[in-house]
Amino acid sequence: MPKTKTRVVVALGGNAILQKGQKGTYEEQLANVRRTAEHMGKMILSGKYQVVITHGNGPQVGAILLQNDAGQRYGIPAMPMDVCGAESQGLIGYMIQQCLREVLVEGGRPDIPIATVVTQVIVSKDDPAFKNPTKPVGPFYSEEEAKKLAKERGWIVIDDAGRGWRRVVPSPDPKDIAEKEAIRQLLEAHVVPIASGGGGIPVIEKDGKLVGVEAVIDKDLAGEKLAEAVDADVLMMLTDVDGVAINYGKPGERWLRRVTVEDAKRYLQEGQFAVGSMEPKVRAAVRFMEWGGKRAIIASLDHATDAIEGRAGAEIVR
Amino acid sequence: MPKTKTRVVVALGGNAILQKGQKGTYEEQLANVRRTAEHMGKMILSGKYQVVITHGNGPQVGAILLQNDAGQRYGIPAMPMDVCGAESQGLIGYMIQQCLREVLVEGGRPDIPIATVVTQVIVSKDDPAFKNPTKPVGPFYSEEEAKKLAKERGWIVIDDAGRGWRRVVPSPDPKDIAEKEAIRQLLEAHVVPIASGGGGIPVIEKDGKLVGVEAVIDKDLAGEKLAEAVDADVLMMLTDVDGVAINYGKPGERWLRRVTVEDAKRYLQEGQFAVGSMEPKVRAAVRFMEWGGKRAIIASLDHATDAIEGRAGAEIVR
Repeated sequence: MPKTKTRVVVALGGNAILQKGQKGTYEEQLANVRRTAEHMGKMILSGKYQVVITHGNGPQVGAILLQNDAGQRYGIPAMPMDVCGAESQGLIGYMIQQCLREVLVEGGRPDIPIATVVTQVIVSKDDPAFKNPTKPVGPFYSEEEAKKLAKERGWIVIDDAGRGWRRVVPSPDPKDIAEKEAIRQLLEAHVVPIASGGGGIPVIEKDGKLVGVEAVIDKDLAGEKLAEAVDADVLMMLTDVDGVAINYGKPGERWLRRVTVEDAKRYLQEGQFAVGSMEPKVRAAVRFMEWGGKRAIIASLDHATDAIEGRAGAEIVR
Repeated sequence: MPKTKTRVVVALGGNAILQKGQKGTYEEQLANVRRTAEHMGKMILSGKYQVVITHGNGPQVGAILLQNDAGQRYGIPAMPMDVCGAESQGLIGYMIQQCLREVLVEGGRPDIPIATVVTQVIVSKDDPAFKNPTKPVGPFYSEEEAKKLAKERGWIVIDDAGRGWRRVVPSPDPKDIAEKEAIRQLLEAHVVPIASGGGGIPVIEKDGKLVGVEAVIDKDLAGEKLAEAVDADVLMMLTDVDGVAINYGKPGERWLRRVTVEDAKRYLQEGQFAVGSMEPKVRAAVRFMEWGGKRAIIASLDHATDAIEGRAGAEIVR
């Protein structure tokens, strides 16, 4: 079917669901998601864009991991991390579904279907990240507790910036979206899919089967793979800053509106961008443009609709 | 598109995921789901059936509620019940997805896509169940604790068969499947959908919007609505007994292979079937046949493939 609308994968940052300093109550999260849904809804209601939504899950899966830990006191066995990730996709997908529907109903389009797809993202079992886990997850422990858990459960633990001990897990590179066929079909049928939440549930292939692994995939890099999988025109990564800066917070700080793929790769090499934050966004943008995408945008959530029209944010261009 | 295969909604009972007496570890659940997936896989691999899977979530959402309760000690705000239901859909859907894919890969069909859809089920805000909550959920409390929580959170609590105090929530009747369009589209595209888990996330309509409510919808009755929504030929409810009995456990116990809708309605009226267990199954079967379904089957999980071929289980017939 020929595409009549511009197909956009929107990757929502943490601030789309929870603000810094908030406790993470349902009411707080729902209010943030409602605001986020207004931006998404505006794009959809314009009739110009076909939107696929993906999102982070850091604080939510963190809370679920803590709850799993605490639940053991009641004799409830803790679930592995990949399962907690699947739970967080249900949690966040449901919130986005509800709020986006609200906005679409208010905009006179109750007929536009929305669906959250529980998404597995395939990583390579030979990814070097598995030899070098770096991503802190779950509760803080005392050194003693942490080392005990490391021994008991085979975890790798580190002293996390002096704030306490934490488990670290690998952050492998996404290779493919397991549910891409289903997501594509939903798009063709004019459903708004919510997919690959939290970077997807990380799985490795083993004799053609998919096996969950305890790891965290960066949600922007997974979003880029999702954009490839659905043949998107635009990859838009929304966060709490409206663009990309070099020498960020240093003398010579410069905010960029347009960056060529060449320059972006050089800046990446120079280590200009914060690891786990702006760095994967720029990397995802570069990958998308090199794959053949039309536009890769990094912008603030509040300027999403301006950014898609080219009036805000930063673009990585060929 | 004309249907070339028989379309079957399979409603999996609790035993498909967790056996009585098990603690609920991930390994236990995955082993059960793997066995369940073999039955589902056999049907799909036969090439004769297009399958939609739905499932219960009692023990899983119970565990999530307990974890939410326990997590408050770490300062993690507890999520409302509808959100916990959404989490359980992610959890269980992911397990089924993984195991079913394994079976399909082993059967030489890695190409058949599977997708879990986070599903909201619409109930009426005027459902009499909201005035008379009967379904116990979550942790057991002491009388004192329970009454304190009832006061603080507006819960209704009861003494649950002398085992302790528990919260009770309404169990309203399902009216419609909010994501039916997406689920239908997946089926048309030959995707195996996993949907309406745990009876769906209960929502009420308010000015065309959907608002989550703290309630539990019976998964067989929700499965029946799902069967209507996807225009299914067969509704198959799988449990741990292979059929329907009258005078169950009493003198004159009789196991039935075929029951007419008329007789089934009479038995329902007589209170022949266990509330919350066989009763909603028979009720769902009656509804499905009255709606225009071709076959409504109640069978044991282990005889699923025999039952679909008419060699096991019980059928409610016109």
